[in-house]
Amino acid sequence: MKKVGVALLGLGTVGGGTYRILTEMREKIKATDGVDIEIIHILERNQDRIKELGVDPSIVSTDIKNVLEDPRISIVAEFFGGIEPARSFLIQSLKAGKSIVTANKEMFSKHWSEFECAAKEGKAGIYFEATCVGGVPIIRTLTASMQGNIIQSIQGIVNGTTNYILTKMADEGKSYDSVLKEAQQLGYAEANPSADVDGFDSMYKLSILSTLCFNKKVPLNKIYREGITGIDKIDIENGKKFGYTLKLLAIGKLNDGKIEARVHPAFIADENPLASVKGSFNAVLINGDNVGDIMLYGRGAGDLPTGSAIVSDIVYCARQETHKLSSFDNRPEAVSDEDFENDFECEYYVRMNVMDKPGVLAKIAASFGKYDVSINSVEQIASKGSANIIFMIHMTQESYINKAIKDIKSLPEVLAVNSMIRVI
Amino acid sequence: MKKVGVALLGLGTVGGGTYRILTEMREKIKATDGVDIEIIHILERNQDRIKELGVDPSIVSTDIKNVLEDPRISIVAEFFGGIEPARSFLIQSLKAGKSIVTANKEMFSKHWSEFECAAKEGKAGIYFEATCVGGVPIIRTLTASMQGNIIQSIQGIVNGTTNYILTKMADEGKSYDSVLKEAQQLGYAEANPSADVDGFDSMYKLSILSTLCFNKKVPLNKIYREGITGIDKIDIENGKKFGYTLKLLAIGKLNDGKIEARVHPAFIADENPLASVKGSFNAVLINGDNVGDIMLYGRGAGDLPTGSAIVSDIVYCARQETHKLSSFDNRPEAVSDEDFENDFECEYYVRMNVMDKPGVLAKIAASFGKYDVSINSVEQIASKGSANIIFMIHMTQESYINKAIKDIKSLPEVLAVNSMIRVI
Repeated sequence: MKKVGVALLGLGTVGGGTYRILTEMREKIKATDGVDIEIIHILERNQDRIKELGVDPSIVSTDIKNVLEDPRISIVAEFFGGIEPARSFLIQSLKAGKSIVTANKEMFSKHWSEFECAAKEGKAGIYFEATCVGGVPIIRTLTASMQGNIIQSIQGIVNGTTNYILTKMADEGKSYDSVLKEAQQLGYAEANPSADVDGFDSMYKLSILSTLCFNKKVPLNKIYREGITGIDKIDIENGKKFGYTLKLLAIGKLNDGKIEARVHPAFIADENPLASVKGSFNAVLINGDNVGDIMLYGRGAGDLPTGSAIVSDIVYCARQETHKLSSFDNRPEAVSDEDFENDFECEYYVRMNVMDKPGVLAKIAASFGKYDVSINSVEQIASKGSANIIFMIHMTQESYINKAIKDIKSLPEVLAVNSMIRVI
Repeated sequence: MKKVGVALLGLGTVGGGTYRILTEMREKIKATDGVDIEIIHILERNQDRIKELGVDPSIVSTDIKNVLEDPRISIVAEFFGGIEPARSFLIQSLKAGKSIVTANKEMFSKHWSEFECAAKEGKAGIYFEATCVGGVPIIRTLTASMQGNIIQSIQGIVNGTTNYILTKMADEGKSYDSVLKEAQQLGYAEANPSADVDGFDSMYKLSILSTLCFNKKVPLNKIYREGITGIDKIDIENGKKFGYTLKLLAIGKLNDGKIEARVHPAFIADENPLASVKGSFNAVLINGDNVGDIMLYGRGAGDLPTGSAIVSDIVYCARQETHKLSSFDNRPEAVSDEDFENDFECEYYVRMNVMDKPGVLAKIAASFGKYDVSINSVEQIASKGSANIIFMIHMTQESYINKAIKDIKSLPEVLAVNSMIRVI
């Protein structure tokens, strides 16, 4: 039987989960996949963690040389998080001919091209199923099951924390701040929640996913990003009346050959299968020209779901004789502005507060009309001395509606434009 | 670049779809996957079809020898349907060292073990992504992404025709017969709909899927099967009131080490992600001990979705140097009764029509009680001279409730036991 040696860099949440699965499943994996996966070395400095997991201390150190110089190790799985030293250690591993497995989406989305160069040099492989949507096999689907398709679009709920917050706000009518506090107490959100709620985490994943979808490098700086911190529960309530659910979406699209990539809150119709993805669950909807819509759904985070993805990469890698690397030009300098669409088209929901007097609506409508922005419906709710108006706007360019809203804000009768939410 | 020759056996719906995708995508597949897939030979006798698809007649014949004896062909994809001659041609192909790709679930579920033997003999591979749930990569997920899990259960809506019928009945309040007629007129159901509506198609797929899930042969005769022909729209309406949606489910479960496999209509709670799978869409929910629940969703049939799965298998196969075969004992004689659970546990919905007079309910309750069947709730709707009663029954053994129902049917006050539907 093929014997494959593995090194684990770090024994944190996911590293520990991977250690447990690899240890418990060793015999099962031998039986089903015909490879014997042995953990040869682990880098970890936390002695309590080593004891807690029952790891043999003789295979643990804090020196990467013990990994790089051990010829028995052919796969290095990284769990440090952050950029350094994870990046350097993985580059060195690849150059030494060791394949790498990682869940580190920030690092991977920023340094993918370096890894590719090092992998080619060392004739090694790069496996990153766990960077996107935990245990859900979205990366394997894109690389090994969609070859008969030109992928037209990808839409995903790829961050569990924000989906948990938005679901709670929708189901329990609570405010963003109170749900965030709850999520932090339960450990679902970080003390500094910015990576999640400002959409950075979703952006890293979208960069990786849309690069695979469109077989062209989609760097972070080509992705429009907007988080959920400004979401008012009133808008979630209003959306319900129109048959919409509010989600933080990561969207990649082919648009006349140009790539459109964006992360922002969006109203989606209740019929869209993403609308029923609740709590900390994630899901990704892909449209291929031949297969049509397919969706993958599951837990996006957690020690064991992510460990499951890492282990599947390790076993998959262990069975390969040659490794598939990306066929597109992965170098940062290969990215051309012309490949990307910046001014995307959407429908919109706009809520504003205006003075309750004659002629206001006509003025606002004129401002929309001036920029060819066409109103689908208007709903007005009078309140004391002012009126709340909700406009549903037909498909239009983002730049057009932005200009219209700027004009509208300058009207003396308009007290506030409270929210503008894209409708998918 | 690696050149790989393919033969297509048949140019029907899916064969034609595959021909189109392989032809149109040849350059793209060269670019992304580094293999040049060339269609070397096609078996087809329908000259009109050959013309319609624009196939070069010089590569078409009706003689399998032209496939078996051509050393350029290393992959044979079959689209004949039915058992023979598909089975013999594929066995001969495997023995000649050619890998096979098929969408033929009936043949594959019945003859898998023969294919395995022939594949070992010819050192060839067997690829059958397209047998289950069209373009949705469920087979690849089970074989290449779940290695870090003991799969606990699989629940699937794996037949589009029946899901279309049940969705229409639920959404439009129509009867089974009228929706079936509509589906037949639209071409969604066959003139003889038995394979779909009696659950055979779902059973074939469940045999393949649960065999992969549990790494043990699950033959057709170990699968309980019940179709949707007896479904009354009244029960679908009643289910709604309890928060349930009715679906034809294929279920595989590990139960104290025993495998439970069954196909039948079932009420599922609206929170279950399968509940929102509508129309001709399919979905499969897998529970792994580490990854938790994951779901795959998409179109289960059609020329291009299924063609997409076939092409992904062809490209995947073309990239392999050695082929992964099943590690379990696939021989029919390896199946042991002891590995299977026949008397499964469920909750139940039971509707009956009884005489509207004192003491009836007590007698029925006593019959349930006699077999330890515990009632969760009772709802009675009086109608002229008789009463309709709906019992929701707590988790119990199938054998117990069957005995109780038999007793209840023999009570003179019970006019009819109209329906008994499992609740998942």
